[in-house]
This record gives sequence, structure tokens and C-alpha cells, in this order.
Amino acid sequence: MSLLDRIKACNNGTDVSAYLPFMVSDIRVGWIHHDFSTALSPFDDLFAVEVDSVRLADHLGNYRSRTMAIDQVTRTLNNDGWFSGWRAEPYAVGRGFYDKPFFEMERAAVPRFGVAAYGVHVNGFVRDGDELLRWIGRRADDKPTYPGMLDNIVAGGQPVGLGLLENVIKEAAEEATVPSQIAGKAKPVGVISYQHEEDNCLKPDTIFVFDMELPMDFVPRNSDGELAGFQLLPVRKVMEITADTTDFKFNCAAVNIDFLVRHGILGPGDPEYIEIQRGLHR
Amino acid sequence: MSLLDRIKACNNGTDVSAYLPFMVSDIRVGWIHHDFSTALSPFDDLFAVEVDSVRLADHLGNYRSRTMAIDQVTRTLNNDGWFSGWRAEPYAVGRGFYDKPFFEMERAAVPRFGVAAYGVHVNGFVRDGDELLRWIGRRADDKPTYPGMLDNIVAGGQPVGLGLLENVIKEAAEEATVPSQIAGKAKPVGVISYQHEEDNCLKPDTIFVFDMELPMDFVPRNSDGELAGFQLLPVRKVMEITADTTDFKFNCAAVNIDFLVRHGILGPGDPEYIEIQRGLHR
Repeated sequence: MSLLDRIKACNNGTDVSAYLPFMVSDIRVGWIHHDFSTALSPFDDLFAVEVDSVRLADHLGNYRSRTMAIDQVTRTLNNDGWFSGWRAEPYAVGRGFYDKPFFEMERAAVPRFGVAAYGVHVNGFVRDGDELLRWIGRRADDKPTYPGMLDNIVAGGQPVGLGLLENVIKEAAEEATVPSQIAGKAKPVGVISYQHEEDNCLKPDTIFVFDMELPMDFVPRNSDGELAGFQLLPVRKVMEITADTTDFKFNCAAVNIDFLVRHGILGPGDPEYIEIQRGLHR
Repeated sequence: MSLLDRIKACNNGTDVSAYLPFMVSDIRVGWIHHDFSTALSPFDDLFAVEVDSVRLADHLGNYRSRTMAIDQVTRTLNNDGWFSGWRAEPYAVGRGFYDKPFFEMERAAVPRFGVAAYGVHVNGFVRDGDELLRWIGRRADDKPTYPGMLDNIVAGGQPVGLGLLENVIKEAAEEATVPSQIAGKAKPVGVISYQHEEDNCLKPDTIFVFDMELPMDFVPRNSDGELAGFQLLPVRKVMEITADTTDFKFNCAAVNIDFLVRHGILGPGDPEYIEIQRGLHR
């Protein structure tokens, strides 16, 4: 078994040599694969595709003009099949999560631009004496991404204009019918971050992690069709599945491992203990 | 207030340009300052001090011969005043914590050789309803290092031949008279790591962190003279002192911040939230 393999799978995007920095006003906000940069070339009034970078045109001087330009380009490229699962859900693009963003971009386009994305993951757990159990979801078979894989009970990307805890409460209601009185008490317990590469996209992701204690008699029900079902598993079983299989969506495996460390289920007797935790904070 | 400043103080050792790699069999095990390398030059049967590295002589081919050679050199240099607080406590030196070490080195010499050191820190806390309080120690005024500063209730370096939890139990007894039944239940909750520079020494440290819940009526007493006293403080007060002062020993501040994050006291509303956590895992 190797939990470290799961962490390495999250951080498989360290080699950026096939990518060009995506620049806005001399600040890198993403990574664009050479293939995708050719798709941006025709939009030369909005992008300067150069040998060593892709730059958003300087005449796009404010949030609104940049957002409109990006919207126009991404809609056109979506029709050409460059993105999958258009959601009409705007993500903020900028220097960092806490900085004023430069513009908004449709969520489905974010990976192609290699833009930092943020999300929330909620570990829904139940205490049975000294034992911990976790509610685990399974993604619907018709999800555009990672169909059928194991997932957290509640997880979601972080769109513009919603607070983190608001997002937790909204996703908890939609994905697992968790009452807001319970979801609102979800406890922030840290962030994990990684740089993942998939299908010529770099994904520098940051996940805000929450622990949500659930009453023993609570049973989640999905209400938005995104999850096919749930099961309540002892945390050691979650560890076993995470270590021995790739059944969990890649980043849910990392969230599982972080949970196991914080709750002392995975301890320093494991020779991967130190490297795992460095890998959770790239 | 800035908790991030405390993290930055831990990680002030990123510039290694004044240091030479300390090599054993082509593997770097430490960083040696140019000043200290001149002190090693006379021992040219044991060290090859070159322009770009300091190498342990290749004829020292095993654990025992390396340990004896290092012991001889460090005792001589200790008489010359290169180290402070000789303890006769051997630390393992090697590729990593979980790898077979190359040799042992007296603890007091470790910082001068820039060798990775490991330790345990134990957060002794008390629950009062939903509130958490922490027992905080103050270092004795005659400690050779960081006298009079605030410290964790239990903390110690990790010597050769002792398990991590054994070390926790031993230090908990010596530093705070915590019964082994309580200390033995201290929960491993992760590692933090940083690279600190102080007095021309690089310190790449890794701390194994434990949370130890204490009964409300427990009062710690120091039995080894290393701590001058203890106080029980609400965690928010610990946060305030950590953010607003440098009263805590630099790495205890990092352990405090990690505790605050894991227990949801410091949440993602703080704009330093993400950067703090990256800084705790260098």
C-alpha cells in the first residue's frame, strides 16, 4: 500500500516545459499548453501569443473589459470543443485567493488556462465511541468528470461572490441534504494544495478543508444528481481503499490522507509520513 | 498582528549561498558555513574542505568509523568554543528520518553542520465546554538557548535509539510531570518543517506534533529545571501573544499556529491562511 503514490498523482504537474506562462500586466496568472496557445493565436486583438508567454492584451485595462474579452473567447472555443462541461459558473482569476482578482473566467475553461482554482471539501464524519466513520459519496456515472469515482460527501469549486462557508452550506444541501444548522458548524481545518497535470492542462489547486461532525442517525441523500449514492465507512477502511486502489477521485485521496494525519489514524510510524505532508502543501 | 511574520522567521534560511554542502558518499547531509569550514580544514584526514563542498573522507566507510571521527572532531572544536550546551545526546545523521543513518553526532554540534534535526512538540490542552485552553511553559532563565522565552508544555529533540512516543512520554515526565498514562495517549497530528538560520547555522528542522488532552484538574510541574513555570491560557490568548509578540521561541510560534489552524481557531477568513500553511511545510 502507498498513500504517497496518491499524493504524487496529485503533484504530477511539476514539469511546466510544455506550457507558456499566461501573463496579465506582468503577473503570471496561469499556464497555457503550446497546443492551446495555437487556438488562442487567432484572437490577436485580445491575446499576444509569443515565444515565451501568452499575454492578455494591455488595452484590456480593467476587470469588466478583461472579463468580457475572456467570455467572448471561451464561448467561441467552447463551440470548437476545447472545454467540457460548461457550467456558467464564474471563477476569479488573479494573483492569489485573497487579492483583488483581475477578471472572471467560466469554470470549465480554467484548466486550459492553467489558472489557480479554489474549492471546498467537507469530511462528513460520525463518532462511534473512540472510532471515527466517514460518509463517502460515489460520483454519478454521467458526471462529465471522473464518473463513478469515490468522492467526499460534500465538495465543490469556489465561484465568484460566495463565501467559503456559504459554499459549504450550499453544496452540503445540494449534494447530501445536510441541514444548514449542521453544515454551518463545519470546522475549517486547513488547506491542501497541489499542481496536477491532466489532458495537457495544469491545475494548481487549493482546497479549503472542513470537518463536519454528523449525528449518528443522519443519512445523506443527494438532491442534485451529481452523486449516485453514499456509504458510511470506518476511517481505517477509507485509508485502505485510498492506499490500495485508485477508486477515489485523485484529489479526494489527498483530502482523505490529510484527515487521517490530523486525526492520528496515520501516524509517524509510517515511513511516508513526512513526505506525504510536504506533498499536501505544494 | 501577523502570524505570517512568525512563519517567515522560522523560514529565514532559504539563502544557502554562505554555506557549503556537507557531503557523505555523494549525498548531502548538511550545510556548513564558510567560517566553520575553515575550522574543519585542519582535520584533513577526516574532512575534504573544497571550494564547493565539505566531504567526509571516503575511507570512513561505516557507521562506527564515521561516528568516532565526528566525535573526535566535535570534542576538539567544542573545546575551541564552536558549540554551546554540550549534552552528550547523539542525533542520527543521514538521508532522512526513515533512512538508515550514516553516523551519530552530538546534538550541540548539529546546527554548525546544518544537519536535519528532528523533535517532538506536544500541545497540552484542556477542554472547557467548547473552549480550548493550553498549558504554556516558560523556559528557565539559565537555559543555554532562548532563556526566558515561552515554550510548549512538552518539547524535545529526537535522540538516537528512542521512539517518538517514548520520547514524548519521557519529556512529558521530565518537563511537566505528566503521568505516562496521559502522555502515552498523546495523538500524533502531523509534522511541520522549516529551514531556519541563526548565528551562521542553517537548521532544517522537522517537528513531529502531538496533541495531548489533559484533565481540567491537572497542573504541570517541571522536574528537570528546564522550565521556570507554566500558565493555562485560552487558545485565543495564545494566538494573540503569538501574533503580537516574539515572546514564544520561534518554532513554538509555528507549532501554535498549526494548532490554531487544525482546531479551526484560525480560519480561512485570515488573508494569510494559505501562505501560513505552505510555510509550515518547507
